[in-house]
Amino acid sequence: MPEFLKLLTPQNALNLWFENIPFSFPKYEEIKTTDGLGRVTAEDIKALHPMPSFSKSTVDGYAVMAKDTYGASDSLPCYIKLTGEILMGRQPDRMLVAGTAMLIHTGGMLPEGADAVVMLEHTQSSRSDEIEVCRAVAPLENIIQVGEDVRQGEVVIPAGTRIRPAEIGGLMAFGIQTIKAAWKPKVGLISTGDEVVPPESTPTIAQVRDINTYSLEALVKEHGGEAIRYGIVPDRPAELQKVLHSALSECDVVMITAGSSASARDMTSKVIQEAGKPGVIVHGINIKPGKPAILAVCDGKPVIGLPGNPVSALVIAWLFLPALLERMQCLQTTIIKKQIAARLTINFASLAGREDYIPVKLTMEDGIYQAEPIFFKSNLIFNLVKADGLMVIPADANGLNAGDMVQVLFF
Amino acid sequence: MPEFLKLLTPQNALNLWFENIPFSFPKYEEIKTTDGLGRVTAEDIKALHPMPSFSKSTVDGYAVMAKDTYGASDSLPCYIKLTGEILMGRQPDRMLVAGTAMLIHTGGMLPEGADAVVMLEHTQSSRSDEIEVCRAVAPLENIIQVGEDVRQGEVVIPAGTRIRPAEIGGLMAFGIQTIKAAWKPKVGLISTGDEVVPPESTPTIAQVRDINTYSLEALVKEHGGEAIRYGIVPDRPAELQKVLHSALSECDVVMITAGSSASARDMTSKVIQEAGKPGVIVHGINIKPGKPAILAVCDGKPVIGLPGNPVSALVIAWLFLPALLERMQCLQTTIIKKQIAARLTINFASLAGREDYIPVKLTMEDGIYQAEPIFFKSNLIFNLVKADGLMVIPADANGLNAGDMVQVLFF
Repeated sequence: MPEFLKLLTPQNALNLWFENIPFSFPKYEEIKTTDGLGRVTAEDIKALHPMPSFSKSTVDGYAVMAKDTYGASDSLPCYIKLTGEILMGRQPDRMLVAGTAMLIHTGGMLPEGADAVVMLEHTQSSRSDEIEVCRAVAPLENIIQVGEDVRQGEVVIPAGTRIRPAEIGGLMAFGIQTIKAAWKPKVGLISTGDEVVPPESTPTIAQVRDINTYSLEALVKEHGGEAIRYGIVPDRPAELQKVLHSALSECDVVMITAGSSASARDMTSKVIQEAGKPGVIVHGINIKPGKPAILAVCDGKPVIGLPGNPVSALVIAWLFLPALLERMQCLQTTIIKKQIAARLTINFASLAGREDYIPVKLTMEDGIYQAEPIFFKSNLIFNLVKADGLMVIPADANGLNAGDMVQVLFF
Repeated sequence: MPEFLKLLTPQNALNLWFENIPFSFPKYEEIKTTDGLGRVTAEDIKALHPMPSFSKSTVDGYAVMAKDTYGASDSLPCYIKLTGEILMGRQPDRMLVAGTAMLIHTGGMLPEGADAVVMLEHTQSSRSDEIEVCRAVAPLENIIQVGEDVRQGEVVIPAGTRIRPAEIGGLMAFGIQTIKAAWKPKVGLISTGDEVVPPESTPTIAQVRDINTYSLEALVKEHGGEAIRYGIVPDRPAELQKVLHSALSECDVVMITAGSSASARDMTSKVIQEAGKPGVIVHGINIKPGKPAILAVCDGKPVIGLPGNPVSALVIAWLFLPALLERMQCLQTTIIKKQIAARLTINFASLAGREDYIPVKLTMEDGIYQAEPIFFKSNLIFNLVKADGLMVIPADANGLNAGDMVQVLFF
């Protein structure tokens, strides 16, 4: 049986891994609402009062009793006595009595007695104390009543909502200054490899600088986690065991980038397997780049084993880590990534039987995205620098033609 | 002439506004690379050395002289003497001589004398000091030479690049610990309205809490700017003039949310017009919500006048501010927003002649996005809370049918 038939697709690998992770209600902390951007709510936010909290006009115009306008038209306007203006932010100083109108602004409070607002455009002021109404209004027209938008006690932001600018505005509408937010999952980062040195040092010949710790740290931050660096561990099982043990006890998730040789990867897999139950869930995914990736769970904590190559490591982490962090904060995640359709600019050869993720540059032409693959000999990190996203070549495709529509995952 | 024929489309309004803003090379500051996520590079990053900096193997296998393998096949393998292993991170301790092979791992340094690597899969080890090669390799096969990925001095990250995880990894590959990044534009936020009170206070009847300062502050942060709050100004020209003057002297951009009545909006427009040359560039955009928006430039500084309604304010700010902040940091911006195609779930009525932006909830079905419009009576902020993005109804559409494809801008 060819190897790719035994390997899981990325989506199936994610599903199987998630089935083995004991997700629970997230740990949470109290934070200031103004610090909430990007965080996830850990409680239902309920309306503290009805909204609006007073009946108000939705237009600029005149508060009236609707029945006083019945029959009014351009050719036969009706005349209503103007008795004053309702100031913004102030309660009207009197009731509206039949046969009178008061000037009111958008958002102004409706006076008692009034049940509709005539729009400014449908009136003329012939005299300073009188308006000419050219169109009838029905009761409740151009007003919004107490609680019509939101009833008191209604859930306005459910638990498990990612906080965006609109949510922050909504919280402020009720004066909610602090909220319970899901804890930012702590992600431990371990680099391995005898050839890897810290970026601040000058590699001797045959050595390379550690890239993965820093690109992955940025990915963790970008997706709402907190990254903790555990440095570079040489390719010796005992040392990796020790560092993994610390990371598992201090973090909620651990990511290990294996050395790039097959033996280094085997060592990583063995060390993860022994670090806790059930151990390695997925070893090898039907994807390029990143086939040797490991998805594991050690005594309840998710562990990701990444290939050492910086492109493979970042692509795999980008496919699996954000989905994990979202789920750990109780955001529901069922798809790996948001995607867009784009038109391939050139013919593209690929091997059937494996999902290929190819860096592409996106341009917009006549309202349709064009995807131009980025070619490269080795998996150099700078090839991702030129890319706007990854084009997915399905496992059953035997190459694609220029003009074919493809799915692209945006970075 | 109907009003909508005189109003600019959002894209044309943006273009006209940008033509009046004196964009220049951005102010920049030196920052730590690890703090760079989301920032924009203000200098070309050049390769400090070739990459790779030594010739290396791209596979696990045996370093050889290619000519020693010529003619090898499964049925007629050739035998090569194994003389040792090249350790990761170490320079090979000897030259490779003709007729010999050395074990090498992915990323290992090629020994002098070797010009190719035979993959492990294409060999067998019959004896401990000998390998059996079943497939010939050509010179340079499975190796990557010095500078083949990147030449020394080559621009690897151009100025004006948004820093993502891949860029941080790329900088670390050269040990670049600090970079010049475009200054985060300072955006002054002014709320106006006699009916508006700070969110921490309890509004009396007829008052509402300030939402816009906080939703806009979050939007500014989300898009790489720094927000400075100027609080709530009553609907009096002299007070607004004073605060706008301070904001213009301390910030790079100013956003004013006008009171929601027509007279309050007129006041805002007049105050902006008098605050500097050329003043108001666009007043009124052919869009719903947000038609009364103002795009202005006061003595070189962009000013946005937003409607007071929180939904209109956030939608207009979201359409125009990120594009502005990107351009001020010298990212090139030619389209307002990234968009995806989605299938409308229901029939949807709309007036021709105006671009409508309708909040929608997105779901994925059979690989195609489904857009379900969110209906509401008033422009309540919580309607945006339920939405994943805004569906664009083109100005020439007279309503749409269920099943029609629409463009959706993702939040």
